[in-house]
Amino acid sequence: MRLDLFNNTSFSRGRPVWIETLWLFVQALFINSWIPGSVHRKLLLRLFGAKIGKGTFFKPGIKVKFPWRLEIGEHAWIGEDVWIDNLAKVTIGSHCCISQGVYLCTGSHDWSKKRFNLITKPITVMDKSWLCAKSIIGPGVTVNEGAVLGIGSLATEDLKAWWIYQGVPSTVMRERLLESK
Amino acid sequence: MRLDLFNNTSFSRGRPVWIETLWLFVQALFINSWIPGSVHRKLLLRLFGAKIGKGTFFKPGIKVKFPWRLEIGEHAWIGEDVWIDNLAKVTIGSHCCISQGVYLCTGSHDWSKKRFNLITKPITVMDKSWLCAKSIIGPGVTVNEGAVLGIGSLATEDLKAWWIYQGVPSTVMRERLLESK
Amino acid sequence: MRLDLFNNTSFSRGRPVWIETLWLFVQALFINSWIPGSVHRKLLLRLFGAKIGKGTFFKPGIKVKFPWRLEIGEHAWIGEDVWIDNLAKVTIGSHCCISQGVYLCTGSHDWSKKRFNLITKPITVMDKSWLCAKSIIGPGVTVNEGAVLGIGSLATEDLKAWWIYQGVPSTVMRERLLESK
Repeated sequence: MRLDLFNNTSFSRGRPVWIETLWLFVQALFINSWIPGSVHRKLLLRLFGAKIGKGTFFKPGIKVKFPWRLEIGEHAWIGEDVWIDNLAKVTIGSHCCISQGVYLCTGSHDWSKKRFNLITKPITVMDKSWLCAKSIIGPGVTVNEGAVLGIGSLATEDLKAWWIYQGVPSTVMRERLLESK
Repeated sequence: MRLDLFNNTSFSRGRPVWIETLWLFVQALFINSWIPGSVHRKLLLRLFGAKIGKGTFFKPGIKVKFPWRLEIGEHAWIGEDVWIDNLAKVTIGSHCCISQGVYLCTGSHDWSKKRFNLITKPITVMDKSWLCAKSIIGPGVTVNEGAVLGIGSLATEDLKAWWIYQGVPSTVMRERLLESK
Repeated sequence: MRLDLFNNTSFSRGRPVWIETLWLFVQALFINSWIPGSVHRKLLLRLFGAKIGKGTFFKPGIKVKFPWRLEIGEHAWIGEDVWIDNLAKVTIGSHCCISQGVYLCTGSHDWSKKRFNLITKPITVMDKSWLCAKSIIGPGVTVNEGAVLGIGSLATEDLKAWWIYQGVPSTVMRERLLESK
């Protein structure tokens, strides 16, 4: 392992440096800030390329690496201090609850290679799922419809639709049965 | 699950909106700030309704959702970057050590309901217990006297008095035997 | 357990109070800040006593308790929001990757003592190891050469050279075999 030989020149950041830098300033002042308000966060994220459906809410303290690699459906909630570290695309469905302090990680490294090659993989969070507070999603994971990842838990593999997971790493706990009403 | 149908109108925030907003500003400037000093933090938390015993210390970087739902005994320590997310009452006893980065979570949702109803449950941390760094306490949990929750661990169920717990979710590890001296 | 009887007068902070206070200001403005740039971070950490090898990079949002108890080799990476809580010495080798959100904890307490005595133990992270995002290292741990601690995992015991660990607390998962090329 030789980090001096590392290069990520083949990694596309998707936007010129000046836009990424501008985003850092905008994020620090308006997105990651403690000031409440969802409207201006949604507006600025969209301005920098995020696709966000109607009725979706944003809390304070949020970080997004590349807004141009973020797509969120309708009526989703992005909680306080959520960190969307989207080197690769992050897609969040409709009616999803991403609770406070959740960390979405799309980047990794090939630990078998001397050059520690960068690996990025998208994350997909399907409709009606719930990532509870302080939970973590690893690169390449798909959270299928209605799945729940418990508080403080870690998902490094796909979560099945309408099942509840807990633990680090998480294991399946029980089925999520919705009342018919 | 339909987050557009969610309502928490039956949830009482305990204070008018203007006080909650004022608290957000005060918190950002003086409580959650990196500036050291316990005296002004204690003073401001009390001013907004917290009950805090003598000899209790506060470190920088703290967040408290509703100071008016916080009660702390004497000679307790609230560490750096502790987040007391007290939608419901949080009670911390005397001689408790709440270490850096601890997260106390009182809010949840009914995942079986279409409307994803808000559920809030109080947290009680009894005298002489220790929540180690970066540990997490879930809604409704009672940490009984002298219990210890290990670093990075999660408690979603009550911790027995004078036992040590570790893991996510935590399991009992060993008894906490104090030297007689 | 009587926190009013606690004293850490035997604990040496290594520098006069005014230097520690100055460091708090410098850290808040230039190290823990969201402003990108490694050069000024390295410069300031060295100015306050850290030993840092050439080719080592620092990301934004970093916290270091005592720079004068930090030693880092060459071509290491210190990621975003890494918290080096070094009451005791923290030594990080060359070609190490300390990913975003990692927490290095050197402080603990003797839970068997009424006075809750402070315990500090150094952390050593050997060359070519990788602490993945949001992982935690406890007091006294040695991460041996080339070891990997998985995302969101916790190490409270030494990690063997060239093995991969995961979980809270972490267990050994598999060997880290590097390609010969």
